[in-house]
Amino acid sequence: MTALSLLDYASVLVFALTGALVASRAQLDLVGFAFIACLTAVGGGTVRDLLLDRHPVFWVGQPNYVLIACAAAVLVFFTAHLVESRYRWLIWLDSFALSIAVAAGTGAALSLDQSGVIVVLMGVTTGCLGGLMRDVVCNEVPLVLKQGELYVTCAFAGTVTAVMATRLGLDALPALGLCALVCWGLRAGSLLFGWQLPVYKGRPPSA
Amino acid sequence: MTALSLLDYASVLVFALTGALVASRAQLDLVGFAFIACLTAVGGGTVRDLLLDRHPVFWVGQPNYVLIACAAAVLVFFTAHLVESRYRWLIWLDSFALSIAVAAGTGAALSLDQSGVIVVLMGVTTGCLGGLMRDVVCNEVPLVLKQGELYVTCAFAGTVTAVMATRLGLDALPALGLCALVCWGLRAGSLLFGWQLPVYKGRPPSA
Amino acid sequence: MTALSLLDYASVLVFALTGALVASRAQLDLVGFAFIACLTAVGGGTVRDLLLDRHPVFWVGQPNYVLIACAAAVLVFFTAHLVESRYRWLIWLDSFALSIAVAAGTGAALSLDQSGVIVVLMGVTTGCLGGLMRDVVCNEVPLVLKQGELYVTCAFAGTVTAVMATRLGLDALPALGLCALVCWGLRAGSLLFGWQLPVYKGRPPSA
Repeated sequence: MTALSLLDYASVLVFALTGALVASRAQLDLVGFAFIACLTAVGGGTVRDLLLDRHPVFWVGQPNYVLIACAAAVLVFFTAHLVESRYRWLIWLDSFALSIAVAAGTGAALSLDQSGVIVVLMGVTTGCLGGLMRDVVCNEVPLVLKQGELYVTCAFAGTVTAVMATRLGLDALPALGLCALVCWGLRAGSLLFGWQLPVYKGRPPSA
Repeated sequence: MTALSLLDYASVLVFALTGALVASRAQLDLVGFAFIACLTAVGGGTVRDLLLDRHPVFWVGQPNYVLIACAAAVLVFFTAHLVESRYRWLIWLDSFALSIAVAAGTGAALSLDQSGVIVVLMGVTTGCLGGLMRDVVCNEVPLVLKQGELYVTCAFAGTVTAVMATRLGLDALPALGLCALVCWGLRAGSLLFGWQLPVYKGRPPSA
Repeated sequence: MTALSLLDYASVLVFALTGALVASRAQLDLVGFAFIACLTAVGGGTVRDLLLDRHPVFWVGQPNYVLIACAAAVLVFFTAHLVESRYRWLIWLDSFALSIAVAAGTGAALSLDQSGVIVVLMGVTTGCLGGLMRDVVCNEVPLVLKQGELYVTCAFAGTVTAVMATRLGLDALPALGLCALVCWGLRAGSLLFGWQLPVYKGRPPSA
């Protein structure tokens, strides 16, 4: 197993946990948990693979990814009542999943020798789209749209860091580690200390 | 015309009827009916074909599918006022469409010699994603998220039945018939008799 | 640069402006503006390219598209407070973007020698799906679902006009110009004078 597929596995596992937590908030049954977990877990990477014409799509070629996501769904189904705040777990697990998935997407695009702009876009896409699908389908406010929180920014900063690091001669693996670290650090700072970028200063919408 | 494309035609027709019924609930015009009908009718199969890199996508290679969906939209536009409960028609037509589409997706993946896990996932994807797109776009509560009803479970059980039946030596066609039957039977039982799986037993979300 | 890629550039630019305006209504930060702008700008064309198996996807092969969308996001971030009604700008810019994108999608499908039905569908898809993604993600009422307004109808009429014009011997470029003109004229007439098709005459939904 390569380091890249390890990253994909880790991101699938953690995103699946967040999907199952959202399913628990919607009071679904076990199969519903697995459905939302799989959608969240493979959504971002699937879009990345389709955009880059990378076939078979990572989980079609290696169905273990989906089995891991289902295992995560089962785990959450039987243990979610043990945690005090599911929402807090959701937010923090999502921050890990985001960081790992951004690194995985960045690594996949780097390994295909894509240009810098495309690598950055694939990192952001892989990181953000799985969670976005989860939130849109389950009618939660998408995390990418939360006011006054860094989210897409973390993904963007992480993947840009990796691209610049490889340009400066760093190997792919440490560059991806740095990517995940920067992404997660910014997200954690935003959650813990309220770090944010200036938001749009206009009036709220009238219509 | 092969048996597989017949299944695709039937699933397109019935899903288009459900899409047009949802459009009638949103009080759209005739072109809006056709748009939602087409989205619902070809959505699931399109995702299946893209995931499996099966080109041309079924309706791009054979535009008759889209014309059938449009005909269904016209039919519903002029007759939906005749039925007493559009919602009941919607639910029951959707149960037929789900069953046929699950069989169609399962059959397509079987014919490509995909592994069992992928066949199951393609069955579920083809069955569930068209209706999911319809509900997300039209802002209805997605049927896959309805508490205390079997939905994804029916798709899952149907396609697993087909995979096991073919493993046991049954031909593809009777296996797909069995698939549709199991899927529809479970869904009908859930609608008529309240069959359900245990749902997540935790607290409702606090945030 | 070909005339077709010029159309794609123009549609990306104007759709990105509408995406950024929606982001301003959601009070996002600059990176959020860019994310929604890019999603809106390339969404429809991306689906078109995936459906037609046209690789690389237009913006993967030519990342300038994305940079233009980001520039549009920056522009709106710093100037949106200057306009009196962001919603009115949004609606009218969207009408231009729709018209240009329908022409771009129609042109792309024509250049691949697709059948008439597919050309029409690609025109409608390219025109409508970017805005639809924007509205679904940002939880706005999708413009395609606005009651008593022409929207999908404009896209449909425009692309049908182009197909018929080329069949009658007109060159591709004037045919695409006619397409954009018909689409925009209908949309403008709908916004200014309330032009509409008869909507579904039934009862509103009871459930």
